[in-house]
Amino acid sequence: MEPLDYLAEERSKASFDVEEMKIIWAGSRHAYDMSNRMARLVASDSIFRKDNRTMLSRKDLFKDTLRKTAHAVKRTVELNLSEEESMTLWSYVDQPAYANLHRGMFIPAIEGQGTEEQKRKWLPMAYKMQIIGCYAQTELGHGSNVQGLETTATFDPETDEFVIHSPTLTSSKWWPGGLGKASTHAVVYARLRTNGQDYGVQAFIIQLRSLDDHSPLPGITVGDIGMKFGSGAYNSMDNGFLRFDHVRILRNQMLMRVSQVTREGKYVQSDVPRQLLYGTMVSVRQIIVSESSCALSRAVCIATRYSAVRRQFGSQNGGPETQVINYKTQQSRLFPLLASAYAFRFAGEWLKWLYTDVTKRLKANDFSTLPEVHACTAGLKSITTSATADAIEECRKLCGGHGYLSCSGLPELFAVYIPNCTFEGDNIVLLLQVARILMKTVAQLASGKKPVGTTAYLGRVEHLMQCHCEVRRAEDWLKPSVILEAFEVRAARMSVSCAQTLSGFSNPEDGFADISSDLVEAAVAHCQLIIVSKFIEKLQQEIPGKGVKTQLENLCNVYALSLLHKHLGDFLSTGCISPEQGALANEQLRLLYSLVRPNAVSLVDAFNHTDHYLGSVLGRFDGNVYQKLYDEAWKSPLNDTYVPDGYHEYIRPLLKQQIHTARL
Amino acid sequence: MEPLDYLAEERSKASFDVEEMKIIWAGSRHAYDMSNRMARLVASDSIFRKDNRTMLSRKDLFKDTLRKTAHAVKRTVELNLSEEESMTLWSYVDQPAYANLHRGMFIPAIEGQGTEEQKRKWLPMAYKMQIIGCYAQTELGHGSNVQGLETTATFDPETDEFVIHSPTLTSSKWWPGGLGKASTHAVVYARLRTNGQDYGVQAFIIQLRSLDDHSPLPGITVGDIGMKFGSGAYNSMDNGFLRFDHVRILRNQMLMRVSQVTREGKYVQSDVPRQLLYGTMVSVRQIIVSESSCALSRAVCIATRYSAVRRQFGSQNGGPETQVINYKTQQSRLFPLLASAYAFRFAGEWLKWLYTDVTKRLKANDFSTLPEVHACTAGLKSITTSATADAIEECRKLCGGHGYLSCSGLPELFAVYIPNCTFEGDNIVLLLQVARILMKTVAQLASGKKPVGTTAYLGRVEHLMQCHCEVRRAEDWLKPSVILEAFEVRAARMSVSCAQTLSGFSNPEDGFADISSDLVEAAVAHCQLIIVSKFIEKLQQEIPGKGVKTQLENLCNVYALSLLHKHLGDFLSTGCISPEQGALANEQLRLLYSLVRPNAVSLVDAFNHTDHYLGSVLGRFDGNVYQKLYDEAWKSPLNDTYVPDGYHEYIRPLLKQQIHTARL
Repeated sequence: MEPLDYLAEERSKASFDVEEMKIIWAGSRHAYDMSNRMARLVASDSIFRKDNRTMLSRKDLFKDTLRKTAHAVKRTVELNLSEEESMTLWSYVDQPAYANLHRGMFIPAIEGQGTEEQKRKWLPMAYKMQIIGCYAQTELGHGSNVQGLETTATFDPETDEFVIHSPTLTSSKWWPGGLGKASTHAVVYARLRTNGQDYGVQAFIIQLRSLDDHSPLPGITVGDIGMKFGSGAYNSMDNGFLRFDHVRILRNQMLMRVSQVTREGKYVQSDVPRQLLYGTMVSVRQIIVSESSCALSRAVCIATRYSAVRRQFGSQNGGPETQVINYKTQQSRLFPLLASAYAFRFAGEWLKWLYTDVTKRLKANDFSTLPEVHACTAGLKSITTSATADAIEECRKLCGGHGYLSCSGLPELFAVYIPNCTFEGDNIVLLLQVARILMKTVAQLASGKKPVGTTAYLGRVEHLMQCHCEVRRAEDWLKPSVILEAFEVRAARMSVSCAQTLSGFSNPEDGFADISSDLVEAAVAHCQLIIVSKFIEKLQQEIPGKGVKTQLENLCNVYALSLLHKHLGDFLSTGCISPEQGALANEQLRLLYSLVRPNAVSLVDAFNHTDHYLGSVLGRFDGNVYQKLYDEAWKSPLNDTYVPDGYHEYIRPLLKQQIHTARL
Repeated sequence: MEPLDYLAEERSKASFDVEEMKIIWAGSRHAYDMSNRMARLVASDSIFRKDNRTMLSRKDLFKDTLRKTAHAVKRTVELNLSEEESMTLWSYVDQPAYANLHRGMFIPAIEGQGTEEQKRKWLPMAYKMQIIGCYAQTELGHGSNVQGLETTATFDPETDEFVIHSPTLTSSKWWPGGLGKASTHAVVYARLRTNGQDYGVQAFIIQLRSLDDHSPLPGITVGDIGMKFGSGAYNSMDNGFLRFDHVRILRNQMLMRVSQVTREGKYVQSDVPRQLLYGTMVSVRQIIVSESSCALSRAVCIATRYSAVRRQFGSQNGGPETQVINYKTQQSRLFPLLASAYAFRFAGEWLKWLYTDVTKRLKANDFSTLPEVHACTAGLKSITTSATADAIEECRKLCGGHGYLSCSGLPELFAVYIPNCTFEGDNIVLLLQVARILMKTVAQLASGKKPVGTTAYLGRVEHLMQCHCEVRRAEDWLKPSVILEAFEVRAARMSVSCAQTLSGFSNPEDGFADISSDLVEAAVAHCQLIIVSKFIEKLQQEIPGKGVKTQLENLCNVYALSLLHKHLGDFLSTGCISPEQGALANEQLRLLYSLVRPNAVSLVDAFNHTDHYLGSVLGRFDGNVYQKLYDEAWKSPLNDTYVPDGYHEYIRPLLKQQIHTARL
């Protein structure tokens, strides 16, 4: 028997080679094969099931996470998986756990900030998970401003130890994942004090729990910080708090690659350039951008498939109603998000290249591109995560009422995704960092300093300040050069305008604070330009597969023109684009939607998500939505009995008019 | 001892009479006193506690809801509360429950659609809760398109009964609140069939469960549809599914005020005008708009207070860091939401008046204003709920990392609020209805028909199509006439532009479908104009209290100018406003933020929310945030033991390198 496929007709409409698109999306044939294998491995393993996750109590959810983590480690050993395979397998398990922090933050912190000796001591234990570590930086009262941390590490020359202490309530470590219940160790950030002086924030490795029985060590108060957004979602993680009461650690537990404290208590800085530490930040943020395309693709896949299944209104002569994906209102909300998924994918790919490039340069002591690279990764992290968070919720709304059910997968996807907007740099704070570099770049133009990389267009600012858009017909908006110039003009003029306003302030910092929300908008414009330009660059490469390039061109244009429509005020304010040209862009956008429509389901098939990974009744590959919704409903805990618990105490007395005497 | 107040300094800065503002917010002295009394009654009653709600299992949460409902009924009886007091008390209990649907939908449906005889039979039982009812309209496959419902009610003249049946899976009733577990009866919408003919959708009263033991009656399959968005939130409600297998009911269980079926099975329509039914819709939507201001005010109150407590960066010479509310980036995101809360409040107040007015007219058989009133309430429901949903999430982000904790109150507020965007008319579908009436109004201008009420400005379309904004300096944007004209020009030109495009289509329906997303934008512009104009009208009344009017003027200007900034593309496209004038508006907006800043905490105090109702550690009246966050953390179920459940099975084997032999 043929497997059921309610979406077969949709799939037959595609005018491109879906299998080739899958490889483009994955990045390479190798990446596709590997991730396909891992996805199916996870999907077929009952220990990794997650369809009941939102119904578990906090304790059961946490225990389930511990079990999945152990099982993933076990499978990695049994199947002799590579590091890459193991990470990919874990990403398909799709449940935040202490292991993410152990692998993603604790180990890299030691690798980046430990001396060779320290690395030899700690890393083998960490790799083997003989110790489990977390990354304890954020405090109850201190997040973005790392320099404001209050935990102290005071050197005691008499015993050759540091005394770690939490002097105030607000100095309690707060939020670190894996800290609450699982970790035995932590990299802890604390203010170094020695010889009566404060040397700012340094990192220390500190044991928190006994390796014998897991109980907290003396002087350590540690626990879970409580419930977080949503059901399931990040509640699988033991984000924790941690307080120190004069805890003593050995001097060699300070991570000393960059700074040291000598036996005598003298603070010394090594000749390792501090900038090297930025490399890690670029790497982490590149991963976040890449993951944003992944989260967004899941939401878009669910909403697109369901929009093709769902029908509403428009029935003629008793025939079926219209698929909601045919409505322009649905298309104008959904297709820009579909296009964004692809745009962010390619931006992530490019960032990966950038990371390799900057790593090479740093090794050769070339720090010249670092500020620009920093701005670029900070900015892309900010705008891709903000856009993805909003997009997941928009996709949920696009699924109508049923999107509100947990089994749609979208509520949990939203709840688990949104911390991306806050961690690894609050998105607004990051945009202000971008703006700072933009203002510096504009200020240096006068001195003849040529901007590099993604800020290179600012070198053509004189041209950009004068040019006028040449669009006369809607289809003129399909030219990459036209789009690129429009985005460059917008970004350049917004930066220049901010710089001009700033120059009117006697104190530049006051000015920066005063116009900071304009600066944020200028930074957004700059970052959107980067994404548009990287998408266009991608399309200048050779792209194999029937029709694949055409589809990507359509999506690139949808991405750019929908942004233009959304931020029309920016574009019109520059004077480069007229209202008529803006209206033509909108007209072209409508035509593009018609081109995307028949390919929409296949464009989300190309993400190659398994039903397990999507975790959505509405996004099922086979489109058999209604039967599965009905089956899922029966699993509700409230359906264990016909008459609900509480009926006799709280409903029956009402019905029988005995409420006045009822004991509640 | 003085009670602790970390926000005392903020409160001392207010330049207006907060007590008077509380009365303005409540609507009257009477409304203030009553709601203040009810809020404190709920807050002081331990049965109504909700601080542990997000940690309860689904079953416990549902049972807790049944208990609170029964207790609320009991207190109503004991204290002899009026209907108004009782409703207000229930709103402060703040937990969705079957009683909302019983009182808000089941009873009104009988009141609106039942004959006098039917009302005499059913209403006394319903008022006394001898029966509990829900409103079963939506089906698994049918939401917005009520005419597409599939459930059938076939008249059997032999027995004088209707046979109620669910012919398909998609005809299963799906979503009705209170249906899953609590209701004994339902008003069910089904296709009336008699004499072999289909007479469309009608309403029937049907008993679902035994009044003896609450078990479902024969032929009835009923249950809960499962987990929904978030923890706590709407999971307190038993949204249900319902299937009928040839269930027989008496003929007089069809609600027959408007249409009847005779003993012989003849379908007859009474002379009661169908339009009367719209009155209820206006009433329900007015309540939704009013509730939007309430939900928004809660989120804004939390974010504002916490922004005044939270400090980050900017410490000088070891002094305290800067309050985050002092950052312009924070102000530019928060203050427009604060202004929106007030704007929606006054819009809701005006809608209440409109409801009274249209009710009077309908009684006098004057249906002339009905289309405009319909557009107005549909549109305001749509834009206030969409804006509120987005704003709650924005407020959560404004609280940084801690906003992600359940104890911030914001995750649950978001999860429980967002269905407002979907129920009682999907927000996009509603905006298209508004657009339809706008297009009709524009089309009728040629024939000389004068638009009424909120569409009256379209009667001045010739003037609006030509006029130019007179702003020369930033402060010119403070004139109500300038703001109003800008919004009128924008709305009028967007409607006219759509109408012109439509006239180019040979089939108007094709045109309407093709440009529907432009039509949605035109409808939004129209609705925002309504809210701005009602805020301005409010300020033309006498407003007592020192400084109160000035504050409201500032908020009105913030609301209008922040919308202008957000939708600048619309305004510039009209050609009425120049980019320079747009920049001046933005400049004025920045100045307004400085005026709002010292009054911000007092402006949210004026909402008079109790700490119980806010349910937020971050939004506490006394600002004692950090101590309470720490106290709350200890309540996490994971902190019941130092060593977590699962340690021995799933963590220890890893640490001891025994994972390969572990049984997981």
